[in-house]
Amino acid sequence: MAEPSVKPTPLLKDELDIVIPTIRNLDFLEMWRPFFQSYHLIIVQDGDPSKTIRVPEGFDYELYNRNDINRILGPKASCISFKDSACRCFGFMVSKKKYIFTIDDDCFVAKDPSGKEINALEQHIKNLLSPSTPTFFNTLYDPYREGADFVRGYPFSLREGVITAVSHGLWLNIPDYDAPTQLVKPLERNTRYVDAVLTIPKGTLFPMCGMNLGFQRELIGPAMYFGLMGDGQPIGRYDDMWAGWCVKVICDHLGYGVKTGLPYIWHSKASNPFVNLKKEYNGIFWQEEAIPFFQSVSLPKDCTTVQKCYIELSKQVKEKLGKVDPYFNKLADAMVTWIEAWNELNSAEGNTVKLPAKGAAK
Amino acid sequence: MAEPSVKPTPLLKDELDIVIPTIRNLDFLEMWRPFFQSYHLIIVQDGDPSKTIRVPEGFDYELYNRNDINRILGPKASCISFKDSACRCFGFMVSKKKYIFTIDDDCFVAKDPSGKEINALEQHIKNLLSPSTPTFFNTLYDPYREGADFVRGYPFSLREGVITAVSHGLWLNIPDYDAPTQLVKPLERNTRYVDAVLTIPKGTLFPMCGMNLGFQRELIGPAMYFGLMGDGQPIGRYDDMWAGWCVKVICDHLGYGVKTGLPYIWHSKASNPFVNLKKEYNGIFWQEEAIPFFQSVSLPKDCTTVQKCYIELSKQVKEKLGKVDPYFNKLADAMVTWIEAWNELNSAEGNTVKLPAKGAAK
Repeated sequence: MAEPSVKPTPLLKDELDIVIPTIRNLDFLEMWRPFFQSYHLIIVQDGDPSKTIRVPEGFDYELYNRNDINRILGPKASCISFKDSACRCFGFMVSKKKYIFTIDDDCFVAKDPSGKEINALEQHIKNLLSPSTPTFFNTLYDPYREGADFVRGYPFSLREGVITAVSHGLWLNIPDYDAPTQLVKPLERNTRYVDAVLTIPKGTLFPMCGMNLGFQRELIGPAMYFGLMGDGQPIGRYDDMWAGWCVKVICDHLGYGVKTGLPYIWHSKASNPFVNLKKEYNGIFWQEEAIPFFQSVSLPKDCTTVQKCYIELSKQVKEKLGKVDPYFNKLADAMVTWIEAWNELNSAEGNTVKLPAKGAAK
Repeated sequence: MAEPSVKPTPLLKDELDIVIPTIRNLDFLEMWRPFFQSYHLIIVQDGDPSKTIRVPEGFDYELYNRNDINRILGPKASCISFKDSACRCFGFMVSKKKYIFTIDDDCFVAKDPSGKEINALEQHIKNLLSPSTPTFFNTLYDPYREGADFVRGYPFSLREGVITAVSHGLWLNIPDYDAPTQLVKPLERNTRYVDAVLTIPKGTLFPMCGMNLGFQRELIGPAMYFGLMGDGQPIGRYDDMWAGWCVKVICDHLGYGVKTGLPYIWHSKASNPFVNLKKEYNGIFWQEEAIPFFQSVSLPKDCTTVQKCYIELSKQVKEKLGKVDPYFNKLADAMVTWIEAWNELNSAEGNTVKLPAKGAAK
């Protein structure tokens, strides 16, 4: 029992890409250098392509701006958001790696209660490489962690767990609140370090935040679509939420696990609550319809791949949420385009077409 | 949002009973004196009635031994386990209070990471008096705690939460492992203080441990039956598990919440794994059938009270688990007897019959 936790964590240097939506903050990569430098970075620039993103010496990276996205995807580029960090999902699509870690440029290295800097990436890898337990709750949290196990009464037949597809990390300092809560509690900071990783049970949805997120791209990548947000769209700040609802429903259907908890990053800056309110207000209404939809959605048995699940979801979105707002019809179409683009870029042929996108400008 | 957490915790001194199954350890009450002395204790002696339990000066208590149980319940006493801590549920039945806290006599006061003694009872009260959130997962754990709230993407319509019926606390030092895990990991100690309380989502079962448990007796008491364990029964150490499966299914049906996490107690002593294995081995088989049964059980809409739910459950137990082992037929009958006894003792008439049971021997 709990054997995997004792082994040293593999670093997966050739199997993981770090995807970052734009880097406005020059300190960001310097701060993460000890942890990120040996990984390949994919930077997806969310705004004006004429602006230059400066990447410090010594990092191995690809940088994609809007012109690159348009060139690579052609008309299918319409499914990638513009002027919004939702564009990060383009990076998931062009990656060739098994694992992805994605992080925002206002997220810095956090410290644990002993004052030690937290290697967030290492913890995500630990989470992803140890199983999940979605069908029965373990009261001592992740049973595969060192010093923990399954408690009395946990069925032995379930102790192998299932493959973990997603590792959702948390944030110290500025919590990930919506605009109304930001407005009401401008001074609230998250100072509570909860030393736990846990599986979100099967059948339960959660608000997935894209700030500090790891996942198995090969397993669940095609469901990690961040939707149509930002410029020209009636909604923002629901990109990761949308992805989270879709991913969770599909993981539940395919028998994969989703973990949340450690690792923490230090979220340095609260975004402007007034701007956020403008982006969010449609989402605040729509989620009251969208969440019950996802809670009751059922995928047929012949949906045996993520792509099939996602296409089926897009149909049901159109059918059930199209009446909430025409936006959902557009989104349902974009979901299909996204899968088409994913399949193109991830076929044997697509792999040769796709590279070199812009190349690693060192 | 999160308003309740700021208020001082009510102590509920006249509304809560502490139920303890036997006290073998003289230090136990001395250690808890600062926290327990102003509450009423109900001690249920699990073994030989001729043995005397010594209660230190200054505690207000009732003590029930087997003779008392037989006298009070008559033939219905058959539903209360003998020579097993499962007998504690008799204390739930004779209590007149709204809330119950039950604890084992090998559980001592734990310390938080700052070295401060943990008032477990106060934390249970906090948990029970603040709502639960069973239908959507909040990634910053209990949104009603001070310094926390609902995160971005949490539907506003669900932020009132639901009434919390159960508060399940955890254990530092000796973890609550089954016999096989005890045998394999004799030296494992739980040293991880996880500073979290969370709602176990709707539709998810958990292994409820009776060592450190608070609940709303008035809401869910009739489902807190600890089954037939110990002397004369083919199984032990599944009393709290059984109660947990029944309680969770009924809470889900009636729309109540179940929380787990804080408070910790210090579990001082591992029970003998060889003895435990003998008690557990049938349960280890049977839980593989019982848990899927509880996972798929469905209660009809007209089950609007805990009693109705429980009687319905007993029927389904007989129908579905009776074929696993004849023990479940006996248990199903005992479930009905338990409800009959509960109703008798908790009717207007029962209340006068029941007291004085033995009286508070000071």
